[in-house]
Amino acid sequence: MSQPLVGIVMGSDSDLPIMQEAAKILKSFNVGFEIVVASAHRTPYKALSYAEKAEERGLEVLIAGAGAAAHLPGVLAAVTPLPVIGVPINATPLQGLDSLYAIVQMPSGIPVATVAVNGAKNAGLLAVQILAVKYPNLRERFKEYKKQLAREVEEKAEKVKRIVIE
Amino acid sequence: MSQPLVGIVMGSDSDLPIMQEAAKILKSFNVGFEIVVASAHRTPYKALSYAEKAEERGLEVLIAGAGAAAHLPGVLAAVTPLPVIGVPINATPLQGLDSLYAIVQMPSGIPVATVAVNGAKNAGLLAVQILAVKYPNLRERFKEYKKQLAREVEEKAEKVKRIVIE
Amino acid sequence: MSQPLVGIVMGSDSDLPIMQEAAKILKSFNVGFEIVVASAHRTPYKALSYAEKAEERGLEVLIAGAGAAAHLPGVLAAVTPLPVIGVPINATPLQGLDSLYAIVQMPSGIPVATVAVNGAKNAGLLAVQILAVKYPNLRERFKEYKKQLAREVEEKAEKVKRIVIE
Amino acid sequence: MSQPLVGIVMGSDSDLPIMQEAAKILKSFNVGFEIVVASAHRTPYKALSYAEKAEERGLEVLIAGAGAAAHLPGVLAAVTPLPVIGVPINATPLQGLDSLYAIVQMPSGIPVATVAVNGAKNAGLLAVQILAVKYPNLRERFKEYKKQLAREVEEKAEKVKRIVIE
Amino acid sequence: MSQPLVGIVMGSDSDLPIMQEAAKILKSFNVGFEIVVASAHRTPYKALSYAEKAEERGLEVLIAGAGAAAHLPGVLAAVTPLPVIGVPINATPLQGLDSLYAIVQMPSGIPVATVAVNGAKNAGLLAVQILAVKYPNLRERFKEYKKQLAREVEEKAEKVKRIVIE
Amino acid sequence: MSQPLVGIVMGSDSDLPIMQEAAKILKSFNVGFEIVVASAHRTPYKALSYAEKAEERGLEVLIAGAGAAAHLPGVLAAVTPLPVIGVPINATPLQGLDSLYAIVQMPSGIPVATVAVNGAKNAGLLAVQILAVKYPNLRERFKEYKKQLAREVEEKAEKVKRIVIE
Amino acid sequence: MSQPLVGIVMGSDSDLPIMQEAAKILKSFNVGFEIVVASAHRTPYKALSYAEKAEERGLEVLIAGAGAAAHLPGVLAAVTPLPVIGVPINATPLQGLDSLYAIVQMPSGIPVATVAVNGAKNAGLLAVQILAVKYPNLRERFKEYKKQLAREVEEKAEKVKRIVIE
Amino acid sequence: MSQPLVGIVMGSDSDLPIMQEAAKILKSFNVGFEIVVASAHRTPYKALSYAEKAEERGLEVLIAGAGAAAHLPGVLAAVTPLPVIGVPINATPLQGLDSLYAIVQMPSGIPVATVAVNGAKNAGLLAVQILAVKYPNLRERFKEYKKQLAREVEEKAEKVKRIVIE
Repeated sequence: MSQPLVGIVMGSDSDLPIMQEAAKILKSFNVGFEIVVASAHRTPYKALSYAEKAEERGLEVLIAGAGAAAHLPGVLAAVTPLPVIGVPINATPLQGLDSLYAIVQMPSGIPVATVAVNGAKNAGLLAVQILAVKYPNLRERFKEYKKQLAREVEEKAEKVKRIVIE
Repeated sequence: MSQPLVGIVMGSDSDLPIMQEAAKILKSFNVGFEIVVASAHRTPYKALSYAEKAEERGLEVLIAGAGAAAHLPGVLAAVTPLPVIGVPINATPLQGLDSLYAIVQMPSGIPVATVAVNGAKNAGLLAVQILAVKYPNLRERFKEYKKQLAREVEEKAEKVKRIVIE
Repeated sequence: MSQPLVGIVMGSDSDLPIMQEAAKILKSFNVGFEIVVASAHRTPYKALSYAEKAEERGLEVLIAGAGAAAHLPGVLAAVTPLPVIGVPINATPLQGLDSLYAIVQMPSGIPVATVAVNGAKNAGLLAVQILAVKYPNLRERFKEYKKQLAREVEEKAEKVKRIVIE
Repeated sequence: MSQPLVGIVMGSDSDLPIMQEAAKILKSFNVGFEIVVASAHRTPYKALSYAEKAEERGLEVLIAGAGAAAHLPGVLAAVTPLPVIGVPINATPLQGLDSLYAIVQMPSGIPVATVAVNGAKNAGLLAVQILAVKYPNLRERFKEYKKQLAREVEEKAEKVKRIVIE
Repeated sequence: MSQPLVGIVMGSDSDLPIMQEAAKILKSFNVGFEIVVASAHRTPYKALSYAEKAEERGLEVLIAGAGAAAHLPGVLAAVTPLPVIGVPINATPLQGLDSLYAIVQMPSGIPVATVAVNGAKNAGLLAVQILAVKYPNLRERFKEYKKQLAREVEEKAEKVKRIVIE
Repeated sequence: MSQPLVGIVMGSDSDLPIMQEAAKILKSFNVGFEIVVASAHRTPYKALSYAEKAEERGLEVLIAGAGAAAHLPGVLAAVTPLPVIGVPINATPLQGLDSLYAIVQMPSGIPVATVAVNGAKNAGLLAVQILAVKYPNLRERFKEYKKQLAREVEEKAEKVKRIVIE
Repeated sequence: MSQPLVGIVMGSDSDLPIMQEAAKILKSFNVGFEIVVASAHRTPYKALSYAEKAEERGLEVLIAGAGAAAHLPGVLAAVTPLPVIGVPINATPLQGLDSLYAIVQMPSGIPVATVAVNGAKNAGLLAVQILAVKYPNLRERFKEYKKQLAREVEEKAEKVKRIVIE
Repeated sequence: MSQPLVGIVMGSDSDLPIMQEAAKILKSFNVGFEIVVASAHRTPYKALSYAEKAEERGLEVLIAGAGAAAHLPGVLAAVTPLPVIGVPINATPLQGLDSLYAIVQMPSGIPVATVAVNGAKNAGLLAVQILAVKYPNLRERFKEYKKQLAREVEEKAEKVKRIVIE
C-alpha cells in the first residue's frame, strides 16, 4: 500500500475494535492510511501536532473516533484545514448520545463531518467519497462498491423469497 | 461565478432561510453552486434524477437540508457517488432531534456527512474543505478563513477586556 | 393462500426475525402477502419500482420495517397511493428512537402509519383492520381475534388468582 | 357532504386548532366526517360508547388526537374493529414526546396508526388512503393530490431559482 | 389476612414479577389486597367495571402497573374516586420512558400517583401511607418500617467501614 | 376554612404561580391547607423540621413542588410518614425533565406520589382523593367534581358540533 | 480588587451575559478574577496557552463556559493541573443537552467540575468553595452567604404567608 | 495514611463497586479519606450531621455518589461550606440520566461539582485537584499523574502501530 492519504485517529486502543472498520474499508479500496492513538485530553499536544502536520505530510482526510465527551474530532478540526470525519463511539451508559452530541453539534466555523454512532465503516466510505473528488479511479471503485451493495441485497432478497412463514 | 461545483438541495422553500447560509459561505469562497428545491417525498424522482446526474453535470459535492423525518440527504446519497453533506433542520416540536437522527444514523454502506442542527454554514465550509482536497487555492483560502475566525475572536476578546462587571 | 394483498418490505434479511411477526398475523387471518427485501439506500430503484407497481399488481397495503435512519417506509409512501405501515426497528445503540423518529415524523403530505418500535405484529393487525374496511369477512375475523385476546387475558387472570404471594 | 365515514375525536375543544387540519383534508376529498369531543379520562363511557357504535353507524375510520398522557386513541382502539389513527399533540413542556410515546407504543394486539406530533393533516390523508382501499374514486383523487403536491414543489423550486444570494 | 383494601391491577401476568413487590409490602404490613389481571386494551370493560365497583366493594386504594403505552392506571382513574397509584414498567426498547410518560403526564382533572419505573415496592409503601391517613395503627407500623430502613443502612455502614481499599 | 390538613411546600416564591393551582383546588373542596416556603437546599432544617412536625400538627398530606434538581419532595418524604405528593416544575432549559426524574425516580423505601410536570392542580385533586379515604364527605364531593368535569366536556362537545370546517 | 485567582474563559463574547454571573459572585466575595475570550476551536493555541500558564500566573481555579459541542472546559483541563469548572450553555435547539453531555461526560483521567445548564452563578460559588479550602476568610464569607440565602427564603416565606388564594 | 481530608459518602453499600474508584485514586495520591454510608432518604439526619460536622472534623472535600433520584450530593451541599463532588450512578432503567439530572441541575446558590455517570475515578482526581490548591505537593503529584496518563497513551499508541489490519 502506498503513501497514507487518510489518518485514523483515536484516543485509546480500546476504540480500535470499532475504528478498524474504517481501516478495513480503506484497505479494500487500496487507499493508504495510518492509525494513530492520540488523546484530546491525555496527549493534547500530540493530537494537535499530528493534525497540524497532517497536510504537509500528505494526508488528505482525517477520521477521528471518540466516546463520552468526545472532543478529539473537534480538536483536530480546529488546527487542520483538512476535512475531519467524526465517529461517535458508544462507550458510556448514555449509549453514544453523549459522543454524538459532542461531535455533531460543532459550533459555526469548524465543521466535523459526523457519521452514525459506531459508524466507522461509513467513515471509511465517506473518506473514499471525499478522496474521489480528486482521484477519478476511486470514484469508479466507489461506484462498483455501490453496485456490490445492491447485489448483496439482491442475494438476500432471493434467500428471503424461499423462506416459509409458519 | 463559474460553473457550479456544489448542489444545495432542500425539500421546500421554507428551508431557505437556514440553507442560504451554506450558499453565502460558498459565494464568499467564490465556489460555484446551485440551489435546488426537490423533495424526497413529494418529488422523489426529481430528487433522485438530480442526484444521479449530479456527477456528470460536473457537481462535486451535494449539500441537503431537511427537517422532520429528514430523508432527503440519504435518498440523494443512495444514488450518487458524490459526498453528501446533511443539514438537520429544527422544524417540529421535537426540536431537530428527529431530523438529526434521521440523517446521522445512516446505515452501513451509505454515509451522509452530518453537521449540527441548523448548521448550514458549517455545511458550506465542509464543502469547501472537501473541494480543497482537489483545488489547492481553496485550501489556501480556507486557511485564511480560519485565521480570520481567530482574528474575530481576538477582537471580541479585546472588547470583553474593557467590560466592567458591576 | 391466495393472491397477495399485503407487501411486507424490509431493507435487509437481518430485519426478518422482527418482520415475520407481521407475516404470521396475516397468515393466521388468511390474508395473502409477499415478503420483499429492498433497501431505500442500497437498491433505491428496486424499492421505488416495487412501491410504484404495487397498486397495479393488486396489493392493497404495504408494511415496511427499518432500523437506524429508517427511510424505507417514507420512500415507499412517496410513490404509492396505498396506505404504508411503518415499523421502527431497534437496531442501533439509540434503541429504536432513531428509527421511530425517522418514520413517524413524516412531513405534511406523505403519511406513514407508524406502530411501536419492533411492533411488526401490530403492523400485521393494522393491515388486517385496513383491509377489513373493504372485506367484511376480515372484519368478522378481526372481531373474533379481539375476543380471543380477551379470553387469553381471562385465562391469565385465572392463573394469577391462584398465585400465593410469600 | 354525505354520510360520515370518518370520526374525528378529541378530548377537548382546545385540540380543535390542530385537529381541524384533518377535517379540512377530508372536506377537500369530499369524504363525510364528524367531529366529536369525548375524553378518555373525563367522559370515558361516552368515548367507549362512541367507538363501539362507530362500525354500526357506518363509520369506517377513526382519527383521535390527544396531548400529554394521550390515552384516547388507544382506548377507542380497544373497543372498535375499525382502524384508529392517532395524532400526538404537543400540549405540555415535554413537547409532544409524552403523547407520541403514549400513542405509538401501543402493546401487542391493539395497534394505533400513529402520525407525527401535531400531524393532523397527515391523519386526514391516511384516512383517505385507507378508505381508498375500498373506494376507487378516492384512490384517483389521492393520486391527483400527490401530483398537486409535486406541482407545488415545482413552483417553489421555480421561485427559489430566481433568488439571489448576497 | 382480612378484607382487601388495595387492588393491584396489571394488564398481563408478565407484569407479575415486578408487581408482586407491591403485594409483598402490603402483606408485610398485614394490609389485605387482591391481584387482578385486567387490560385497558384487551379487556377494557373488565378493567373499567373493576375500577367502578372498587369503592363499593370496600377497596380504598388501587395500584396499577403497565408497560409500553401504559394506559391502565389512567383508565382506572377515569372511573373511580379512589386514589390510583401508577407503576411504569420497563417493557420495551424505550426502557420505561414510554410507560413513565404515559402514566405521569395525566391531564388536568384525573391524577395518577406515579412512582419510579419498576417501582412497585414503593407503590405498596405509598398505598400504606395513604391508608395510614385513616388507620392509625398503619401509621405506627410505617414509622417502624422507616426505622428499620435506617437500621439496615446502619448495618451496611458498619460493613463498609471494615472494607479495605487496595 | 378549618384547620389545615394539607401542607403545600415550595422552595421559592417563584414557584407560587404554579403551586397555587393546588391551593385553589383544596379551597374549592373546602379542605384546609397552608402554604409554606422552605427550601431543601437553602433552608434544609426548616424543611425537615416542617415535615417532621407535620403529623403532630394535624396535617395529613404534603404537596411539594420544585424545579431543576428537585429534591424537596424527597427530602420531606424522608422524615414524615405522611404521603407526599411531588410536583415537578418546568424551570430550566431541560423543560421539566430534570425535576420529573429527580422526583419520580425515588429509591426503594421512600415513595413520592408524582404528578405531571407543572401538574399542581392534579396534586390538589390527588390530596383530596387521599383525604377522601378517611373523610366520606370529601369522597362525595370528589364524585361530584368528576361529574362536573364530564359536564364541561359535554358543553365543549356541544360547542364543537356547531363549528363549521371551511 | 487584588491579583486574579480565578480565570473565567468563554469561547465568544455572546456567552458573556451568562458567564458574567460567575464574575458577579466572585466580585461580591472580593475574589480577584479575569475574563478571557479564547475558543477551543477558533483560537485553540491561545486557549491552551492560557490554561498552561494559568498556574504560574497565580490563578488557582478556572471556570469555562461553552455551548453546543462544548469542548472548551475539557481542552483547558487537558493542560492545566488547576481544577476546571465547566458551565454548559443553552445555545442550540438541543437546549443545552449537547453542551451538558459534552462537558460532564469527560473521560477517565481529566475531570471537569460541571454545574447546571446556564449555571454560571453556581460556578462562581463553587470556585469560592474551592478557594476556601486554602483561604479561611473565604470559608467564613461563604458561610455568611449561605445564611443570607436562608434569610432570603425566610423573607419570601413571610411574603407568601400573606398571600390570599382566591 | 494520615487524617482523612476527603469524605466519600454513598447511600448504600451497593454503590461501593463504583465509588471505590474514588478511594483508590485518593489512596494512590496518599490522600487520607473515609468511606461513609449515609442515605439522604433513609438516614437523612445522619447524612446531614455528617456533612455539618465535616468541616470541624478536618475534612476538606466531600464526594457523594447516588443513583436514581440522586439527592445525596445536594443534601450534603446544603449544610456544608465544603466543596461537594457528585457522582451520578447508573442504577435504574433510565441509565443514569435520572441521577445525572438530579445532581448536576442544582439550583442557584448550592453548587455540586458533577462528574460523568459512574465517574467516581474522576471524582477522586477532582478532589486531588481541589486539595492541590492548598497543598503544593499534591499539585506536583497531580502533574506527574497527567504525565503518566500521557505515557500510557504513548504505550498504547506503540502497540496499535504494530497491529495489521486484515
